[in-house]
Amino acid sequence: MKKIMNQAENYTDDMLRGIYAVHGDMVKCASGDLRCYCSARKTQGKVAIVTGGGNGHLPLFLGYVGDGLLDGCGVGDVFQSPSGKQIYQITKEVEAGAGVLYLYGNYTGDVMVFDDAAERCELDDIETRSITGADDVNSSADVNVRRGVAGIFFMYKAAGAKARAMGTLDEVLRAAQKAKDNTRTVGFSLTACIIPEKGIPNFTLGEDEMAMGMGIHGEPGIWNGPLKTAEELARESCDTILKDMPLEKGSQVALLVNGLGSTPLDEQYILADSVIRYLGTKGVKVYRSWVGEYATSMEMAGASITLCKVDEELKGWFDEPVHTPFYTQV
Amino acid sequence: MKKIMNQAENYTDDMLRGIYAVHGDMVKCASGDLRCYCSARKTQGKVAIVTGGGNGHLPLFLGYVGDGLLDGCGVGDVFQSPSGKQIYQITKEVEAGAGVLYLYGNYTGDVMVFDDAAERCELDDIETRSITGADDVNSSADVNVRRGVAGIFFMYKAAGAKARAMGTLDEVLRAAQKAKDNTRTVGFSLTACIIPEKGIPNFTLGEDEMAMGMGIHGEPGIWNGPLKTAEELARESCDTILKDMPLEKGSQVALLVNGLGSTPLDEQYILADSVIRYLGTKGVKVYRSWVGEYATSMEMAGASITLCKVDEELKGWFDEPVHTPFYTQV
Repeated sequence: MKKIMNQAENYTDDMLRGIYAVHGDMVKCASGDLRCYCSARKTQGKVAIVTGGGNGHLPLFLGYVGDGLLDGCGVGDVFQSPSGKQIYQITKEVEAGAGVLYLYGNYTGDVMVFDDAAERCELDDIETRSITGADDVNSSADVNVRRGVAGIFFMYKAAGAKARAMGTLDEVLRAAQKAKDNTRTVGFSLTACIIPEKGIPNFTLGEDEMAMGMGIHGEPGIWNGPLKTAEELARESCDTILKDMPLEKGSQVALLVNGLGSTPLDEQYILADSVIRYLGTKGVKVYRSWVGEYATSMEMAGASITLCKVDEELKGWFDEPVHTPFYTQV
Repeated sequence: MKKIMNQAENYTDDMLRGIYAVHGDMVKCASGDLRCYCSARKTQGKVAIVTGGGNGHLPLFLGYVGDGLLDGCGVGDVFQSPSGKQIYQITKEVEAGAGVLYLYGNYTGDVMVFDDAAERCELDDIETRSITGADDVNSSADVNVRRGVAGIFFMYKAAGAKARAMGTLDEVLRAAQKAKDNTRTVGFSLTACIIPEKGIPNFTLGEDEMAMGMGIHGEPGIWNGPLKTAEELARESCDTILKDMPLEKGSQVALLVNGLGSTPLDEQYILADSVIRYLGTKGVKVYRSWVGEYATSMEMAGASITLCKVDEELKGWFDEPVHTPFYTQV
């Protein structure tokens, strides 16, 4: 294991210390707990949005806390959930009189944690709603058990824009739901990553092998086989998405090409080029694209392709400027 | 070799096609040549700044073309220089009546290319000045032959800010020179990268081995040895820089912690934390930090630490907002 770190057991806390040291003007921790990551700015009367999950996916999840996006994030150990108490403490810190939306990935541990926090909030008369990202098409045919991956970015943007426009809690929930209903992701891995405290790769792939549909924690995908070209990956991924979410000729989509960690930007743009051209042959127009590392698995190589079918309302939300220490859109 | 690409020989052009497809509102190519990458916006009377170099370092070099930074960039094949003719064509496209600054890394091939372009420009009565980034302390004791690495970012910011303020060509050159004089970088590699057309790693390191001072193309460093901790790397790197550029107690620096490719953001922030604390013990205050991938070597693992000693003038330049497809600071 080659990682730039100190003690493996301090990996997440050392990282957080660095983030607070560098971005202390924009973020802070609640209750003196580094893992309770909150925006330093609070707007009274605005719906607060709280996310959370295991560390190891930067900029997901905490990187989206900031102006126009989220208000707080619970940070677990690498690939481990934070606690319900931590989510509750964050909620107490960021709630501003208009209720709180819990928006996080569809993983059993995280669901338990946010449900626990919601119960604690109820005793305090803080109103909460919950919605999960569940965009990973290959993880299940049943949308209710699908895993959440990079597509949560579009849910963050929709909900964040509606909250900044001072929408009600139910309106912010509806914005997130609308983004969710129209978003699908397909991802593939080329190499494994190593959890610092374990020190060994979380799975193995052959010299020229890839895994289609593998999850961002190394959950098994739908096939392992020889590495395909960018053109072939674009075609298979888009076909999988279009089978699940048909797009008529003339449809417009927002496109997110996401690098999983060690896949260079060069390759991400090669893939984006292949995706945009392939969608063109289907009569689908890309309204706007985001290319880069938005949801990673530490040093895993691979990428994901997310499509969100957009109408004027979604376009408006996605075009809103946002500013966090990790992501700025003007 | 596991890369998401199509034909290896089209790696750079396919990447560029993706970039133009995604960011066509902000950038364009000159003379119908994909490798002649220019800002789509031109401000008459402003000094134009042109950079260039081999591909494989995104967001360096082309990622800094945009508002408040650079105007054009010549893109070579992976780790290969562009041509003098390409730099000349870019210059013709972006020059806006106030002269052109050539600002690029100190590599023999690139120096030849920019000198060739400058000669061509002279025949056209376009005034040019040239300055190279040469911040890699471990690459040579002689500052004139040092390689340019991530520290060119601070030169871009200084020169870009001065050019946007409508400084003269000599004033813009002076801003770049001032950033250069105060900037030093130390980098280290944990793994190699693979040039697509070659298909094999450009060097080898043992299972737990790292290379201190290795260049971003795999140029040999000053020692290979067992991987050190973040604390140890921070100490050795800062000590090397401080030996070359003494910083008195009470000095302020701008800090850039740069990931070389496959080193996750998590580790970059762990390193930043170690650097900031170590500088604190020396009485050196970090005015502002940038942490992320600013100058990579495709999928190489490793990082670099850049310090720029700042006064009020440099702080002002570094705090200016900029906006490119790859880097936005508000």
